[in-house]
Amino acid sequence: MELLITYDVDTTTPAGQRRLRRVAKACEGIGHRVQKSVFEVVCDPVQRLRLEAALTDLIDPATDSIRIYQLDRGTFSAARHLGAAIDARHHEPLII
Amino acid sequence: MELLITYDVDTTTPAGQRRLRRVAKACEGIGHRVQKSVFEVVCDPVQRLRLEAALTDLIDPATDSIRIYQLDRGTFSAARHLGAAIDARHHEPLII
Repeated sequence: MELLITYDVDTTTPAGQRRLRRVAKACEGIGHRVQKSVFEVVCDPVQRLRLEAALTDLIDPATDSIRIYQLDRGTFSAARHLGAAIDARHHEPLII
Repeated sequence: MELLITYDVDTTTPAGQRRLRRVAKACEGIGHRVQKSVFEVVCDPVQRLRLEAALTDLIDPATDSIRIYQLDRGTFSAARHLGAAIDARHHEPLII
């Protein structure tokens, strides 16, 4: 499945800045960063559940917000981009 | 159609801060803010073209980034939300 994950983490405190780094790290582990707080993730349902559990543990639910959109396959490649891009490739073979 | 619009605007300069405000205002005119830099938009193809043209004019393409995902109807209401929420309703009658 394709997931789009967007987040707002309150960084007005050092603890918030730590949460932001941890949320980003959890997303980096499974997805491709396309903007500062936006990740495209291609994963299976089990990976999704693990990620949601990890993110739920990391955030402060009173101040932070994470949204997870489940998209049809192909939505990422059809996305329109304006301006400066961070390259994000999915579904492509990894050449080492 | 349902669009998800996410943006990163470089706010390290006063001009960038102005662009951010203008991008947010353009999105507020047609969509519902669900996070600081994420809007859900329900519109028709003509409105989409107008919005894309307006956003293209507003940003600095060297530093700013806007992504527009076209989603299937129903994706917004199925989105998973963790933590603090900004309420966003679509497809509902407006009661004045």
